[in-house]
Amino acid sequence: MHDFVYHNTAKIIFGKNAMEKIGKEAALYGKTMLVLGGGSVRENGVFDKTVASLKENGVEYCQLWGVKPNPDISKVREGVQMARNEGVSLILAVGGGSVIDTAKAIAAGVPYEGDPWDFYGSAKAPEYALPVGVVLTIPAAGSESSMSSVISNEETKEKLSCTAECFLPRFAVMDPQNTYTLPAYQTACGASDMLSHLMERYFVTTECCDLTDRLIEGAAQTVIEFASKAIADPENYDVRAELMWTGCIAHCDILDRGRGEGGRGGDWASHQLEHQLSAFYDIAHGAGLSIIFPAWLKFVSGKDASKPAQFGRRVFGITGLSDKKTAEKMIENLEDFYRSLSLPVRLSEVGIGDENFGEMAKRALAAKNGKIGSYVRLTERNIKKIYTLAE
Amino acid sequence: MHDFVYHNTAKIIFGKNAMEKIGKEAALYGKTMLVLGGGSVRENGVFDKTVASLKENGVEYCQLWGVKPNPDISKVREGVQMARNEGVSLILAVGGGSVIDTAKAIAAGVPYEGDPWDFYGSAKAPEYALPVGVVLTIPAAGSESSMSSVISNEETKEKLSCTAECFLPRFAVMDPQNTYTLPAYQTACGASDMLSHLMERYFVTTECCDLTDRLIEGAAQTVIEFASKAIADPENYDVRAELMWTGCIAHCDILDRGRGEGGRGGDWASHQLEHQLSAFYDIAHGAGLSIIFPAWLKFVSGKDASKPAQFGRRVFGITGLSDKKTAEKMIENLEDFYRSLSLPVRLSEVGIGDENFGEMAKRALAAKNGKIGSYVRLTERNIKKIYTLAE
Repeated sequence: MHDFVYHNTAKIIFGKNAMEKIGKEAALYGKTMLVLGGGSVRENGVFDKTVASLKENGVEYCQLWGVKPNPDISKVREGVQMARNEGVSLILAVGGGSVIDTAKAIAAGVPYEGDPWDFYGSAKAPEYALPVGVVLTIPAAGSESSMSSVISNEETKEKLSCTAECFLPRFAVMDPQNTYTLPAYQTACGASDMLSHLMERYFVTTECCDLTDRLIEGAAQTVIEFASKAIADPENYDVRAELMWTGCIAHCDILDRGRGEGGRGGDWASHQLEHQLSAFYDIAHGAGLSIIFPAWLKFVSGKDASKPAQFGRRVFGITGLSDKKTAEKMIENLEDFYRSLSLPVRLSEVGIGDENFGEMAKRALAAKNGKIGSYVRLTERNIKKIYTLAE
Repeated sequence: MHDFVYHNTAKIIFGKNAMEKIGKEAALYGKTMLVLGGGSVRENGVFDKTVASLKENGVEYCQLWGVKPNPDISKVREGVQMARNEGVSLILAVGGGSVIDTAKAIAAGVPYEGDPWDFYGSAKAPEYALPVGVVLTIPAAGSESSMSSVISNEETKEKLSCTAECFLPRFAVMDPQNTYTLPAYQTACGASDMLSHLMERYFVTTECCDLTDRLIEGAAQTVIEFASKAIADPENYDVRAELMWTGCIAHCDILDRGRGEGGRGGDWASHQLEHQLSAFYDIAHGAGLSIIFPAWLKFVSGKDASKPAQFGRRVFGITGLSDKKTAEKMIENLEDFYRSLSLPVRLSEVGIGDENFGEMAKRALAAKNGKIGSYVRLTERNIKKIYTLAE
């Protein structure tokens, strides 16, 4: 086990009455900028409840609407300008991962003289940011209690990440009822994203990280059990609550401590390969992951089947087979799980051909200074092979 | 799942190089009072390393030695006086649960006009306390990242607990190497304490707390696997690290969120019954728990075997039996685990007779205003029955 520091100060306010508490938290900071996506938060009452709680606590606010999936840096720049003009003290994301990641980028951009895009894909993480709060509407990205933000750049076709301590939200309000109206496909994509955060952390070569292995396995079983239940019974509070809480645990970093150099471990190659997919094509992150992860697992199982086999035995209950055969069966089970949620598992299912495999492989490597993968370090040729396995 | 808030701001500094970081953390607060137990921290170098790091960072300090297991309120009072006289700004516990719990009580006592014993066993939790830091030497109590403190009163033969937000340590330095010299019996008692923290949280009647069920099961499996390894191979870093990290996770409250009214769930009857044992007799907490928990499980399985059976199936891999039979076999497996660590599983093994069953039952109830147990609410007669089952 590697040395690590764990310090997650995000205050999680979870449950049926959580929305009432937004204003009291925001009032600790002052004038608030709401960051929002499309109209769904207007339709399901989340926007009204948020504003009501702010007003009740005398919190002034302004609004930045229009954050899109795979959020673009242009919206971040617009938000930085608005936050400066309005003189806000808190950036309050009301939405899912795209909205939260945009809020984080704006929060870092406000006190920064340069362009906030500077922080993405570089070693230059921001040291200061305005406080960020979250009202979560889509359990998926786990950004509500993480230090990460992923932003795209439509001009350069880049999708890059940044990890910074100052990105950690001060509070996250999580009411599972706000997810009742999520369409089945978005629920499925969210579950795929959560499961990927667990699997990315799971696949390391570090020996002796048994506690976190077991915690990840338990969380993965929960996603697998509750994703289809949420689709079948979208207004079941407890089912939605399990998924929402699991999405947070999956990405709040407690599950990767000690698993790699620098204190945190994980492979994250599948995320890098998926980021290229969603930079080049219009595909949801969770759907990109359900295509890439099985292909990645097929590739790495050829190099070292031990950890996929352990996952197969403990999460899917596969018994009596060799590591190699267990890994193969695990991948089949995983594909079955994705298919049961109507998620794609091949590029051909979403109409993506091999036209950009070479360029995507190059860009994936470039985005990480040539170093992708921890369970298996990937070359450009390996990456192209994985895209091919996903065809 | 019940509504909850989770906000654990303790900074965990874990690993081989953790001890070097004590002084830098302490320097954020100022003059420091070290709270220490017996001489073991002198012998194993922990005291010297702590002091060296404080000096290197220019932190002034004073020392309060002599905290004993089942720590007494008299030492707390002595510490409050010393802290006031010396004008300290940080109480730094260097030890295990007894030392940390004493440090918390002192921290709350310093700004309080009355007697710190007022906070224990009452609804009057302290609102303010000096900052507390921890250098952990015994993985067991989990007090390094919890809001709890348990203090005894030799005069009144009471052992009472207090939970307060201000008790949460600001930082906890955890170097598994500091546990190499722990005697086998203390390692075993620590493992028993950790496992009890997991099982107390597990046994609730709340439906739909599946994620935390699974996380608890994974952590319990880790304790069971690594406790005997640590005894067999006491200087194996990774083994000691697994136990130390598990002890922290078991009690940092992330595993009980949403499992009961008020946001946190757990049964805790076994702890209450054990507290009476160690108030009346000279017995280590972990050894008291290895006696009480099987007896408690026998009793509650007669009322509702479903959750003990789930634990038996998932943690011990028991298959093919009814709930009742699975619960019985689970208890056998649990007793085998305790015995494998040379821990007692019956009161007769430690020379305790039935002479105080009635009085202990009364006091256990009185300490909790008549309300003990959540999985099964216990009457005085039930408690005496459990003590009898433990004979």
